Amino acid sequence: MSSNYRNFRNNVPWLILFLEAVFIVLFLFSKDYSSRTSISYPAFQDVNHMVIFGFGFFLTFLKRYGFSSTGFNLLIVVLGVQCSMLVENLLDFLLQRYMDCGLKRITKATVSTTAVVISTGAVLGKANPVQLILMTVVEIIFFHISRWINHTFLQIPDSIGMMHVHMFGAYFGLAVSSRFSEPSPRSEKNASTSKSDLLSVLGILFLWVFWPSFNSVLATDKHKAIYNTYFALAVSAVTACILSVLTTKDGKFRMSDIRSAVLAGGVTVGYASHSIKYPWIAMILGLLASAITILGSYCSQRCLNPALKIHDTSGVHYTFGLPGVLGALAHVVLLVIENWTNLPRLGSLALIYVGAFCLTISVALLTGLITGLILNLKLFKTTTVSKYFDDQFYWEFPHLAVGF
Amino acid sequence: MSSNYRNFRNNVPWLILFLEAVFIVLFLFSKDYSSRTSISYPAFQDVNHMVIFGFGFFLTFLKRYGFSSTGFNLLIVVLGVQCSMLVENLLDFLLQRYMDCGLKRITKATVSTTAVVISTGAVLGKANPVQLILMTVVEIIFFHISRWINHTFLQIPDSIGMMHVHMFGAYFGLAVSSRFSEPSPRSEKNASTSKSDLLSVLGILFLWVFWPSFNSVLATDKHKAIYNTYFALAVSAVTACILSVLTTKDGKFRMSDIRSAVLAGGVTVGYASHSIKYPWIAMILGLLASAITILGSYCSQRCLNPALKIHDTSGVHYTFGLPGVLGALAHVVLLVIENWTNLPRLGSLALIYVGAFCLTISVALLTGLITGLILNLKLFKTTTVSKYFDDQFYWEFPHLAVGF
Amino acid sequence: MSSNYRNFRNNVPWLILFLEAVFIVLFLFSKDYSSRTSISYPAFQDVNHMVIFGFGFFLTFLKRYGFSSTGFNLLIVVLGVQCSMLVENLLDFLLQRYMDCGLKRITKATVSTTAVVISTGAVLGKANPVQLILMTVVEIIFFHISRWINHTFLQIPDSIGMMHVHMFGAYFGLAVSSRFSEPSPRSEKNASTSKSDLLSVLGILFLWVFWPSFNSVLATDKHKAIYNTYFALAVSAVTACILSVLTTKDGKFRMSDIRSAVLAGGVTVGYASHSIKYPWIAMILGLLASAITILGSYCSQRCLNPALKIHDTSGVHYTFGLPGVLGALAHVVLLVIENWTNLPRLGSLALIYVGAFCLTISVALLTGLITGLILNLKLFKTTTVSKYFDDQFYWEFPHLAVGF
Repeated sequence: MSSNYRNFRNNVPWLILFLEAVFIVLFLFSKDYSSRTSISYPAFQDVNHMVIFGFGFFLTFLKRYGFSSTGFNLLIVVLGVQCSMLVENLLDFLLQRYMDCGLKRITKATVSTTAVVISTGAVLGKANPVQLILMTVVEIIFFHISRWINHTFLQIPDSIGMMHVHMFGAYFGLAVSSRFSEPSPRSEKNASTSKSDLLSVLGILFLWVFWPSFNSVLATDKHKAIYNTYFALAVSAVTACILSVLTTKDGKFRMSDIRSAVLAGGVTVGYASHSIKYPWIAMILGLLASAITILGSYCSQRCLNPALKIHDTSGVHYTFGLPGVLGALAHVVLLVIENWTNLPRLGSLALIYVGAFCLTISVALLTGLITGLILNLKLFKTTTVSKYFDDQFYWEFPHLAVGF
Repeated sequence: MSSNYRNFRNNVPWLILFLEAVFIVLFLFSKDYSSRTSISYPAFQDVNHMVIFGFGFFLTFLKRYGFSSTGFNLLIVVLGVQCSMLVENLLDFLLQRYMDCGLKRITKATVSTTAVVISTGAVLGKANPVQLILMTVVEIIFFHISRWINHTFLQIPDSIGMMHVHMFGAYFGLAVSSRFSEPSPRSEKNASTSKSDLLSVLGILFLWVFWPSFNSVLATDKHKAIYNTYFALAVSAVTACILSVLTTKDGKFRMSDIRSAVLAGGVTVGYASHSIKYPWIAMILGLLASAITILGSYCSQRCLNPALKIHDTSGVHYTFGLPGVLGALAHVVLLVIENWTNLPRLGSLALIYVGAFCLTISVALLTGLITGLILNLKLFKTTTVSKYFDDQFYWEFPHLAVGF
Repeated sequence: MSSNYRNFRNNVPWLILFLEAVFIVLFLFSKDYSSRTSISYPAFQDVNHMVIFGFGFFLTFLKRYGFSSTGFNLLIVVLGVQCSMLVENLLDFLLQRYMDCGLKRITKATVSTTAVVISTGAVLGKANPVQLILMTVVEIIFFHISRWINHTFLQIPDSIGMMHVHMFGAYFGLAVSSRFSEPSPRSEKNASTSKSDLLSVLGILFLWVFWPSFNSVLATDKHKAIYNTYFALAVSAVTACILSVLTTKDGKFRMSDIRSAVLAGGVTVGYASHSIKYPWIAMILGLLASAITILGSYCSQRCLNPALKIHDTSGVHYTFGLPGVLGALAHVVLLVIENWTNLPRLGSLALIYVGAFCLTISVALLTGLITGLILNLKLFKTTTVSKYFDDQFYWEFPHLAVGF
């Protein structure tokens, strides 16, 4: 089977090269970008930094998978951003829409690519680069289609539609992951050491600090979005610590809980961050988000995943999926409270937001499942279970004997 | 004694939860924040980044205390910022003061929390999370009171009063630390490895790069503050290298010296950075700051600390305390030189600045001592000396056997 | 020989102190800086962050040289920036030129210092601190002279002349390195471990994310520069992965290839980033840059370096030199294509840009060679080949026995 991959490997670079060549040719046909921009460079930079650096190191918790976590993340993000821009261009062209300027287009593409990065977390260590790249292209296309349906048929504003990115990424990733063979439960490679966990903390803190940028980059009222996201994150961090101590046997902190729950507030508050009027609402959302994450983590690992035979390497279900669902619902509840005097508007608002939410999850699960099936055709499925979670299968180590 | 903590631990999360609930309830009563802001988001982001990420990794030099250094730092900062905002709101309400807008309030709260982060450095590895959290709340309150006295009775502008944060944090931390049992001098956990030192370098370089943001965020003439801080830091870095070589036995560099002295210039120049007219003055301050730090480090470790029975884990006395004192004095000297033609004004200026300095130090030492006494009541004192500096006492390690 | 260094070491700090004192005295004579600035603080901050933090960790790939890589990098950068500002001040004074304001001057000085940081990569682990500091001062002076000749006699705009920094740094470094004794090919210290490589990935990702800031900081059309640099970097990253797989024996990724090639697009597109009209041109440049880097890496290591007896520790020749050359030539080609209707202007344009390119390389090689000769006088040459690539020769390790 290993030789299977070796034969296969000879085609890998040609596949990527072909993809990149197609991208370059397609960019030939894209319209000129204006140099005026409605997004500031630091705002784009923050999002770019989060996706490349923050998520790259967020995923380094596996003890033997640091190179792949950071390296493949870079590869996927740059391909995803290019692909996302081309799909957006195509949609703009087909629908004769107004076109965003340069920087705004890259920023939106980078935010969309977050879906892929999150999905990667579910198949981390199990998918080979070709599978990851195929997944990237397919997921980006379907995420754009889902956003387009939301925008066109349900009149969801784009800044809200974009926030479905966490939920879409998580459920797409879970559906893909359900088609992969499960790793052996005794696999000693599917674990972290304190060194790799500390590198992962580096990524977590990075994401934590920059999350207000993520929520505000496309928001209309940026200052409110930043302010509310900060408070949601702050309470999330505190709640993560509390619940981590409460759920462990002898009252210790557990790093994996904190990794999942510390960002939950930011994900949850994403939908409504620009419209929440008082910080205490954001704080309560942060508290609930963190609680649902730790609870979800407990349930997923003990009941749900074994029952559904889903292996979710970095726990994207409870890290991004559940807080996303909570955020979408909380957004509807907040809208209901705000518009309760205007019943007809209230009904239609609630309906379309719940509709958008259901649609996004359904599209994610369905297309994820199909993608998972395709990726596990014999053609692509080359990584045996024994080679899961291992850098050495993909990377050359001239220094193997020394200090690994 | 360990079982003592286990019993105690069951109450830890409820304590934090109670505190967080109180914070949320108090935020219910805080006035609405305007969305207009006088501080730019990147400026706030830089300070936030420094405190969460920079200081988090700055403190990872202990070889077995990386999780606690970064994790507890996050917990303390988010609680400290919320507490600081509430105290500020209360003072605004009581004194019928004008209220800052949202972002500026978080930024000021983050800068105030630096005091707590610095104090943490003195008791790093010795205080348990509950002690740290209690210390956070108490210190934030007293720092605000000290600033308020300075502002109201001595007419110190708030941007200067805020710069006492390093000095206050250092001396409060030292006073608290003096009440903790000293670790065994042969403790092998109270040491760094080259790996943990390298992670600490990451934090140092981060803080070094962002220090101009810290000094300029509340300054009136931001560009001058940035310019002068950069030069003071540059000369500090050079001087740290020089003196490190001069003070070691065989002329080698010592990382702990560089860790302490490289930031000294930034701390010292903080008070006067917006008013220094020529870069060479900032450069000389940087040189003196670095020199006083290395000298202070030599004296503290050999004479002062053993005599006073104070154990200062990350050397906050010479890293932040002494450069802060030097900066406060240098600020007075610069004011004297500037106003020497106007004798009456000169006298009163010198008097109030020296008064503010003495007051801040006294409040820090006194309240720190009391806090230290309270924290070492039998109720809270649960970490035995043998469990100092050890992540395993607070964190679950499912991967204990592997590669720790 | 080791005692040779010990004797020598006693003079090291005095040398640096003397240098720093000279700098401070010279700053006494520099004119006042205006507080108005034409460069924003975040732009300066990004470049500063890249040089101190990004390059510092970029160079940590050697397994026993992490302290020196990051520590000496900081020392060199701060000395280089001060030296560069003084040389610029002197030139401004001698030529009665208009003077930039404060922040712009530090920014330009930081960009110039990149040349030194790149050169350091070539002699990494072989040069001692004194050699590095001397090299810094000499290289900064010659780089300014080269830029001044380009600007005065060839009318090259300063934003283009500044982009020669990569090429100048690389060839200066190579020339210096050719005068150092080669390390033993079996030296086990001249290698990386997966841990040190992962820290280096941290630096690489940092540089990758911030490279658009570097190319845009002095550009006239900042948004175009950012946009084009992003695409060149994206395609570079993809191409680096492709070619890395193609050139290894069994189709695996190689981290050292990715380290060299991932930034190549940013270096190459630097000259023309503000004037490229369509992103696909930047993408093709990124592809070519990455290809030339991997090809260059293959040729250098196998043919060129052994023949010329040059040892290039971090491969600056193909990482920064070749992409720089490609960029300079591509810039000329793009100018030719743009101006092909205006033949006389075309001829003169091509001539001066090719002239500037040849001049810069010649100055770099010649002055580098001379510097290399001087640095290897018996006076300075104190590091024996057996002590190459070793932190322990320069740093005190109190924790030697534990976990190194």
